Amino acid sequence: MSTTNFARLLALLLCAGATTRAQDKKLTGYTDAAATTQLQLESQFDKQLSSNHIGETIRSLSSHPHHIGSARGKAVAEDILQRFKSYGWDAEIVTYQVLFPTPKERIVELTGPATYKALLQEPALKEDATSGQEGQLPTYNAWSADGDVEGSLVYVNYGLPEDYEYLERAGINVKGKIVIAKYGRSWRGSKPKVAQEHGAAGCIIYSDPKDDGYYNGDVYPKGAFKNEYGVQRGSVMDIVIYPGDPLTPNIGATANAQRLDRLQAPNLLKIPVLPISYHDATPLLEALDGPVAPEEWRGALPFTYHIGDGKAKVHLKLSFDWQIRPCYNVVAKIKGSEQPDQWVIRGNHHDAWVNGAADPISGLAALLEEAKAIGELHKQGYRPRRTLVYCAWDGEEPGLLGSTEWVEDHAAELQQKAVVYINSDNNGRGFFNASGSHALETLVNEVARDITDPQTSVSILARKQASEVLKAATPKLRKEKLAKQGIAIGAMGSGSDYSSFLQHLGVPSLDLGFGGEDAGGEYHSIYDSYDDYRRFKDPGFDYGVTLSKAAGHTALRVADAVNLPFDFRKLYETVNGYVNELTELTNNMREATAIDNQLIRDRKYQLTTDTAKHLLPPTPKPEVPYLDFSPLQNALTGLDTVTLALSAKKNLSGAAFNKALYQAEQQLLNEKGLPARSWYKHTLYAPGFYTGYGVKTIPGVREAIEQRRWMEAQEQIAVAAEAIKRLSGYLVTAVSL
Amino acid sequence: MSTTNFARLLALLLCAGATTRAQDKKLTGYTDAAATTQLQLESQFDKQLSSNHIGETIRSLSSHPHHIGSARGKAVAEDILQRFKSYGWDAEIVTYQVLFPTPKERIVELTGPATYKALLQEPALKEDATSGQEGQLPTYNAWSADGDVEGSLVYVNYGLPEDYEYLERAGINVKGKIVIAKYGRSWRGSKPKVAQEHGAAGCIIYSDPKDDGYYNGDVYPKGAFKNEYGVQRGSVMDIVIYPGDPLTPNIGATANAQRLDRLQAPNLLKIPVLPISYHDATPLLEALDGPVAPEEWRGALPFTYHIGDGKAKVHLKLSFDWQIRPCYNVVAKIKGSEQPDQWVIRGNHHDAWVNGAADPISGLAALLEEAKAIGELHKQGYRPRRTLVYCAWDGEEPGLLGSTEWVEDHAAELQQKAVVYINSDNNGRGFFNASGSHALETLVNEVARDITDPQTSVSILARKQASEVLKAATPKLRKEKLAKQGIAIGAMGSGSDYSSFLQHLGVPSLDLGFGGEDAGGEYHSIYDSYDDYRRFKDPGFDYGVTLSKAAGHTALRVADAVNLPFDFRKLYETVNGYVNELTELTNNMREATAIDNQLIRDRKYQLTTDTAKHLLPPTPKPEVPYLDFSPLQNALTGLDTVTLALSAKKNLSGAAFNKALYQAEQQLLNEKGLPARSWYKHTLYAPGFYTGYGVKTIPGVREAIEQRRWMEAQEQIAVAAEAIKRLSGYLVTAVSL
Repeated sequence: MSTTNFARLLALLLCAGATTRAQDKKLTGYTDAAATTQLQLESQFDKQLSSNHIGETIRSLSSHPHHIGSARGKAVAEDILQRFKSYGWDAEIVTYQVLFPTPKERIVELTGPATYKALLQEPALKEDATSGQEGQLPTYNAWSADGDVEGSLVYVNYGLPEDYEYLERAGINVKGKIVIAKYGRSWRGSKPKVAQEHGAAGCIIYSDPKDDGYYNGDVYPKGAFKNEYGVQRGSVMDIVIYPGDPLTPNIGATANAQRLDRLQAPNLLKIPVLPISYHDATPLLEALDGPVAPEEWRGALPFTYHIGDGKAKVHLKLSFDWQIRPCYNVVAKIKGSEQPDQWVIRGNHHDAWVNGAADPISGLAALLEEAKAIGELHKQGYRPRRTLVYCAWDGEEPGLLGSTEWVEDHAAELQQKAVVYINSDNNGRGFFNASGSHALETLVNEVARDITDPQTSVSILARKQASEVLKAATPKLRKEKLAKQGIAIGAMGSGSDYSSFLQHLGVPSLDLGFGGEDAGGEYHSIYDSYDDYRRFKDPGFDYGVTLSKAAGHTALRVADAVNLPFDFRKLYETVNGYVNELTELTNNMREATAIDNQLIRDRKYQLTTDTAKHLLPPTPKPEVPYLDFSPLQNALTGLDTVTLALSAKKNLSGAAFNKALYQAEQQLLNEKGLPARSWYKHTLYAPGFYTGYGVKTIPGVREAIEQRRWMEAQEQIAVAAEAIKRLSGYLVTAVSL
Repeated sequence: MSTTNFARLLALLLCAGATTRAQDKKLTGYTDAAATTQLQLESQFDKQLSSNHIGETIRSLSSHPHHIGSARGKAVAEDILQRFKSYGWDAEIVTYQVLFPTPKERIVELTGPATYKALLQEPALKEDATSGQEGQLPTYNAWSADGDVEGSLVYVNYGLPEDYEYLERAGINVKGKIVIAKYGRSWRGSKPKVAQEHGAAGCIIYSDPKDDGYYNGDVYPKGAFKNEYGVQRGSVMDIVIYPGDPLTPNIGATANAQRLDRLQAPNLLKIPVLPISYHDATPLLEALDGPVAPEEWRGALPFTYHIGDGKAKVHLKLSFDWQIRPCYNVVAKIKGSEQPDQWVIRGNHHDAWVNGAADPISGLAALLEEAKAIGELHKQGYRPRRTLVYCAWDGEEPGLLGSTEWVEDHAAELQQKAVVYINSDNNGRGFFNASGSHALETLVNEVARDITDPQTSVSILARKQASEVLKAATPKLRKEKLAKQGIAIGAMGSGSDYSSFLQHLGVPSLDLGFGGEDAGGEYHSIYDSYDDYRRFKDPGFDYGVTLSKAAGHTALRVADAVNLPFDFRKLYETVNGYVNELTELTNNMREATAIDNQLIRDRKYQLTTDTAKHLLPPTPKPEVPYLDFSPLQNALTGLDTVTLALSAKKNLSGAAFNKALYQAEQQLLNEKGLPARSWYKHTLYAPGFYTGYGVKTIPGVREAIEQRRWMEAQEQIAVAAEAIKRLSGYLVTAVSL
């Protein structure tokens, strides 16, 4: 290369570098000029945010227990309403009438061979100012059945389906017995559900100190982790069938809505279930005899874990009031200047199990801080292009009641108007977590690129990328992660208010928050308090401000974009990855089943198992057939083509095109819903039937494969392929708009 | 295919099947006729074995504490001598004079912030008849230095080198402090050695119930596992430098041998170290403050594990008597009829830390049962072709004293005469474990093929293979294991009496035993008793009989073979595998180092580590160079050729050829020994410098790579390649004998 050529190349490279740096601040859906204006707006927005004010909001709204149906719950909704109004928003309370049971009687006692009556009580602590207040809900699992049962106690580990497979190998049947399961690994509601499927008469759930207690760190109040008396309350409604008021599936729980008979509601349990502390669990577990629990089942209590099914007997008695209670959603709006009928919706719930400083007030305080800042900009003349709708939901804790009823009540309107739903819930110190509709992945990356992490002074995107790299298990995977641009957003299961928007209506949705350095044991206990929060979750409330920025910038960018920042190329890439996972999953299951069946046939299990342990070999499983994945693969080819075309065309615009973009995700809905749970209509995302909160992607296909229903898997491949083809066809039309 | 052809094929297949079955009973080194005779002899041998008698031997020899230097220890040696004589063997006691320290004073106490004086005592139990006897050695680590030290206590996990790397990242230095380490993961002697390397003033080792206690199962006497007071005694002599009497390396510790000054012995510690129970460890660990221990460091005690280096202070005071004591080896012979100067040596130690029903009496009882059976056959006229030498070693527990001194004393004679050394130590219920010289792998497989497992009625080979299959982690690996013929024998590190035979002299060696279903916490405690053994280790003494068969058949087959059953093809295959491992290890380290250095440079650790934890990033390491493995690879090509030739030639025989076969392994010795530990001369097998008992294969090369000494790695590649070339050349000559 000549010197001249080299100089020319150098100039080119420098120029390219400069271009790249300028491009860093490009915003999808914005012209360069509009991007500059929007970034200035965000900068003005950021100046309104105050960590002190967020801290004050958290202190104030978590100052008393405020669960759904309580007087204080109503007062909190009214307080939020006044805040929105004072910020200049057009706000109202939208009320529904929902079922919500609270306990009348709770008894757990060991009746043999020794006796012990469980305390079922978290003590007040002098280090926690709100822990001794009146009005706390007792420790319980909402939606447990009424019941008065007694029986042999059986320890079932985490209560997963595979734990019962092990019990079967050990010759232990839980029919008519009381099971005790640990919190963790699956959503709490799956534990009594699986127990009920196996015929158990009752279920106790406890927090083992291995998962949630001294094993993890110093316990409260010395440290953040669960002390021996702490109990995780929580809902055990079978939300994987449907969330919301169990008496009004698919419709709003208005005062006059037609209601199911409670005992017919398909998402309510038939057996009693109660959560207890590890203090209360200790005498029960120590009383167990029978086989020693396998290593993976053992917790951190200081004795040998046994499975039981012997002399230890437990009496469990529970009854509930089963009241219909008002559910107060607060809905606030600032009307859009150009597209008032396109709604950018932002939400976080306001009800708590007790005081709920972290869950939900830390997320709600960030939302209110955004509303305050936007209100201030609005007073200064800012008008969002689209309508902003900020919501504070009631009744999330018992089963996403407030958001689900509102969404069901406004389904048709939302499918017309809702551009995006941006959710948050609790928030803490650490890393940026984002999940949701993958057409929004590019938007999320651009937002995260422009926000600085309070602790490290790099962007929250760079910090998250660093954590993804270090989380990778091998040097090879680390290298791959290091080479990747941006972050992938997760897929959403359930457990917060986005569920009905995304999975029932197909509204593009996101869930945002921070965490990973705020671990503790306060979740759903009386110790989720302001005193706990300011010591262990987000001491300076700096991540409160950072969440306001992340969610606020996202809302504003969507609200103000001339062309909506959807990137369906990311959706294609993600779904393509899922389909590869499914084929690999099936192949791995086929290989594993074949070899395992051979090992069973060849008596390898008998030859290897300690004869003193009397453990039966596993039961052989039918061989795994080859599935025809070609409908999905061909559908993806079509999506590949149209999303490439969509990415290439930069000058698309217009109201019709924009509306087509945000309604596109509705093409992925299947009107019949998932097998055995028709409320869930999205063909890409659903909570797992046995994981509860945990997501299953392409759930119709994946769950059929996992549960070895091969006919159904093949049918669901067709259903998912049709949905993808529908989306492709729709986008082809959109491109021509 | 025509029917006729099909019939023909079927006949062929059936015939092949029949041939395979006949081949099953072929014995390497034997003509078919000789094999039949030998198998009949083994059948006669088996008929002499009695599980009752083995149980009686265990009861009798473990009836009182009998450590080296005790009156009872001498009585046990004399009892064994009488047994050999009564069985018709020519037996004698060979005595050496060895250093062996016992405690004069032992104090461990917490001096701040609270105070606690450790009990250092295992209580007598009514369920264990011998647990309250006089004459027990107190709980201690032999070869601890005398010392009286006090300092801040620091918890160092298992006390591995990488644990200190973590401490460095946490800003904690152990200089002048007392460290407390858990038993497990490394040999006990490595823990104070690494502590000393880092400047610690003293070291406490305790048994965490996670590794050795209630976490694993019910504790003694209810179950087999370590109760809160149990303590693992044991030697902390740095046997990886050299084993045996520390005052007489390389020579026999005869009465007039020239001795080192004790304080100059390079394998003795400079700091005090003491083992304690988890009862005694609890107040010490609970007193620790400072950072919470990382998850991998946490045990099963019911509190949060902290690292310390704060207010908790410990006083450790120890002194020992440092006496020279007699060491009584029992050596018994039956002279060979054809080759009296070719010795087949079988050994097991007889000294115990306390009663030692499992360790060593269970192995010794099997050895004595073999001697009884062979004696009986001898009385009936059987004469082994080669000389049988059966040994019961003293002083194994403190550091392989008896066997090492005997081997050093008879080095020249053994290098001429020793055909094989077959070791055992403790024995229990379960799977066949065999390790040793890989030229003996075929022999071990043939022996295991012909012995029935007492619990499952398949061969001990088939049962072991089944367990290897199920241990494989993935279906793919299970499939591979399932397709494999036979079992691979392990490589030997240290921890029992084979060490000097194999690693100092190059005598082909084996170590045989059963276990895997006999887990418990009795090891080196007063509870390693007959009462424990008959309940939890080998209740019917059936595996005692099975060990007698395995070791006895092996000894007899080597003793009687016209052509020694050495198979150097297996050695070649194994070493080839090792060299592949070493190249892969280097490549993986190169990749991991490069990526890790990049992560450090790019501040990924700082961005990801919780800022509240104040954990420094790791220190960058020099990049890993490419090593030249070609000398080893070329040497292996030579070994490949000659071992193929050796396998192909079936009609080799003659005394010179046979002698060449058993002396061949001496070609693998390097006279200079390993870097910094010249006593270890074998280029293929050695105990790891930091693993103690755990083996390092091709140790000169592997340890240099692991410890990133690249020049040394390259030099040691040449050394190992030379050894392999020497062996190849030697075998080429042997083929022509």
